[in-house]
Amino acid sequence: MTTEPEVPAYRPPTLTDVARLAGVSVATASKAINGRGEVRSTTRVRVLEAAELLSFAPNALARGLLSGRTGTVGLLTSDLEGRFSIPILMGAEDASGAGQVSVFLCDARGDAIREKHHVQALLSRRVDGLIVVGSRTDPRPPLAGNIPVPVVYVYAPSADPADISITVDNVGGGRLAIEHLLACGRRTIAHITGEAGFQAARDRAEGAAAALAAAGLRMVGDRPYFGSWDESWGRAAAHMVVEQHPEVDAIFCGSDQIARGVLETLRDFGRDVPRSISVIGFDNWEAIAADSRPRLTSIDMNLKHLGEVAGQRLFAAIEGAAPSSEEFPGRVVMRESTLPVG
Amino acid sequence: MTTEPEVPAYRPPTLTDVARLAGVSVATASKAINGRGEVRSTTRVRVLEAAELLSFAPNALARGLLSGRTGTVGLLTSDLEGRFSIPILMGAEDASGAGQVSVFLCDARGDAIREKHHVQALLSRRVDGLIVVGSRTDPRPPLAGNIPVPVVYVYAPSADPADISITVDNVGGGRLAIEHLLACGRRTIAHITGEAGFQAARDRAEGAAAALAAAGLRMVGDRPYFGSWDESWGRAAAHMVVEQHPEVDAIFCGSDQIARGVLETLRDFGRDVPRSISVIGFDNWEAIAADSRPRLTSIDMNLKHLGEVAGQRLFAAIEGAAPSSEEFPGRVVMRESTLPVG
Repeated sequence: MTTEPEVPAYRPPTLTDVARLAGVSVATASKAINGRGEVRSTTRVRVLEAAELLSFAPNALARGLLSGRTGTVGLLTSDLEGRFSIPILMGAEDASGAGQVSVFLCDARGDAIREKHHVQALLSRRVDGLIVVGSRTDPRPPLAGNIPVPVVYVYAPSADPADISITVDNVGGGRLAIEHLLACGRRTIAHITGEAGFQAARDRAEGAAAALAAAGLRMVGDRPYFGSWDESWGRAAAHMVVEQHPEVDAIFCGSDQIARGVLETLRDFGRDVPRSISVIGFDNWEAIAADSRPRLTSIDMNLKHLGEVAGQRLFAAIEGAAPSSEEFPGRVVMRESTLPVG
Repeated sequence: MTTEPEVPAYRPPTLTDVARLAGVSVATASKAINGRGEVRSTTRVRVLEAAELLSFAPNALARGLLSGRTGTVGLLTSDLEGRFSIPILMGAEDASGAGQVSVFLCDARGDAIREKHHVQALLSRRVDGLIVVGSRTDPRPPLAGNIPVPVVYVYAPSADPADISITVDNVGGGRLAIEHLLACGRRTIAHITGEAGFQAARDRAEGAAAALAAAGLRMVGDRPYFGSWDESWGRAAAHMVVEQHPEVDAIFCGSDQIARGVLETLRDFGRDVPRSISVIGFDNWEAIAADSRPRLTSIDMNLKHLGEVAGQRLFAAIEGAAPSSEEFPGRVVMRESTLPVG
C-alpha cells in the first residue's frame, strides 16, 4: 500500500481534542481521565465518553509522569543467547495476567558501562521496576548507583543479601538427578560437569555427592569430573570414565551439551543407553535435549516459573511490600536416556 | 549492605534544584537546558554550570515529550529462543556507536494482540522507531494501526513493499553453499532441508539448484529432500540418501540441526566426513555447529550485520530520509566437515 497523498496523515487524538469535544478545559479533562482532583461525576462521564469516541489512548508516558506508574518493567540481561532470559521475560509478563505489563529487555553484554547506560534509559522511561538476569548463578554485584524503583535479581542472586533474589536450587537439582538415577536402579554413578569456577557446577556436584552419600554410595572416581560446559568435554570425560571404570552404570551430566558428548562416546564404545547405562543432563535445553538419540532426560530449572515469581515479587515491591529472596527446585523431565532397570 | 537509617535516601536532582542554584525560574532553567526559547547566554551558562554541579540528568522522558527524540528504539520479536533477535538487537545498538542508543526488546510470541500491546507500550514511551524481527523469512503483515514512528522489518520482510525491509538473501545462501562444495571438488550433491512451507527452505533450495545447473549438474535424487528442521529428519533423510544414492559425495543441509542428524547417520554408515563425503549446514548456530564431530562448516546469515544496517536505516528514517529495502548475502564459515579433495 502506498499512502494516498490527498489523505492527511493520521495524528493520534490528544487530550486537547478530548477536552474540546467534551466542552471542558484541558486541566479538567486530564483530572477526569487520570481520576485525580475534583471533577463532577457528570463531567467525568462526559470526558470519558469523548475519549472513547475519539479512541483516545492516554499517553502512558504522561500518565507515568503524573502517577508514577506505567505498567512497564525493564529486564537487564547479559545472557548472549537469550536462552535463560527469554523464558524469564515470558514468566514475568505472565505474572500479572496477559496484556497488563510489558517487559522491555536490554542486553548489557556483561559490560558494566553498558548496563549503567541501559538502566538510565529504562529509568528515564519510568519503568516501575527492574529485573536483573545473570548469565551464571554466581552472585553478582547489585546495580550501581541509587535506583529509585524496586529491583529483583533472577537466576544470579545479588551479592547483597538485603536485595530480592529469585534463584534456582542447584544443590537440590544435583540431588534430584541422582535420586532419579537411583530410582532407575543405578548404583555406580559418575558425574561429568562444567568449570569448577562456576557456582552452578559446584552446587550441582555438592547435591549429587550428598544424595549418593545418603544412599551409602560414592561417585565413580571419587570426585566430579570438572571440565567445561561443552560437548567436547563430554566426549573426552566419558572416554576416561568408561576406560577407567567400565562398571559405571549411569552418568549425571552438568549440562545437556556435556550429555550430548557423553552419548556420542558411549555409542562409540557400544554401550547401550539406557539399557546398559543411563544418562541425565541439566538445563532441559530443547534444541539440544529433545532430539538427541536417545532423547535426553534432563533437569529443568523452571525458568519461566522463576520469571513469574520474580514478576510477582517485583509487583509486590512496587506496591510497597518487602518480599524476601527465594530459591526454587528444578524438576526431572524424563525422556529415553534413563529407564528403570529390572 | 543495609541502609543506614540516619542517611536520607538519595533523591535525583530536579530542574527545580538547578533553577534554585542558578537563581533563575524553573521555566528559564528549562529553556536553557533544552536550548529552546529566549535565554540570555550568560543565564544559559549559569544554568548549565548549576546542572553540571548537581549532576543533573535531564529526564529523557520529559525531554522526549519536548523534542520528540529519546535515543531509544523498540525491537519486537516473536523469536522464542532469542537466537535471531539477540544478534540483531546487538547490531542495531552498535549502529550508532556504543552508548548512543538503547534497544528495548519486547517478545510478541507470534501473537497479534500481544504485539499490539507491546507496540502501544513502546510508543507511549516515545521510542524513536521500531525494529520488527520475524521468526521465519516469510513476509509478514505490516504492523497494525497507525504507527507514528519509522519502522524497519528485519529477517522477515513486511508484506507491504513500501515498507523498509532488511533481509537475508536465502537464494544466494543456497548458491554459496553449493559453490563451496563444488570448490571442494564435490560433484554428487544432495540437499536435505526443512519444511517446504517455509520461504527459507524454498529459497535455499532454489539457489542450490541454480548453482548446480550452472555447473552442469543436478541434485542427487533430482529434488531437495524437504522435511523438518530437526536432527531426526537429518538422520532419516541421510539414511535414505546414502541407501538410494551411495555415490553421494556431499550433502547441503538447510539447517545446522539437520546437519547434526546427517553427521550422525553418516558415522553409523561408516562414511568418513569430510574425506568420503562433505557436509555443510546453514545458520552457523554456535551451540550446534562449533562443537560437533567433525566441527560443522555452515552458512552464516550475518544477523549482527543485518541488525547494524537495520539500525542505520532506522536512524536515517528518523532523520527524515527514505531508505529502501535491502537484501544481504550470507558467508561460508569453514570448519572441518568440508575439505578440498585432491
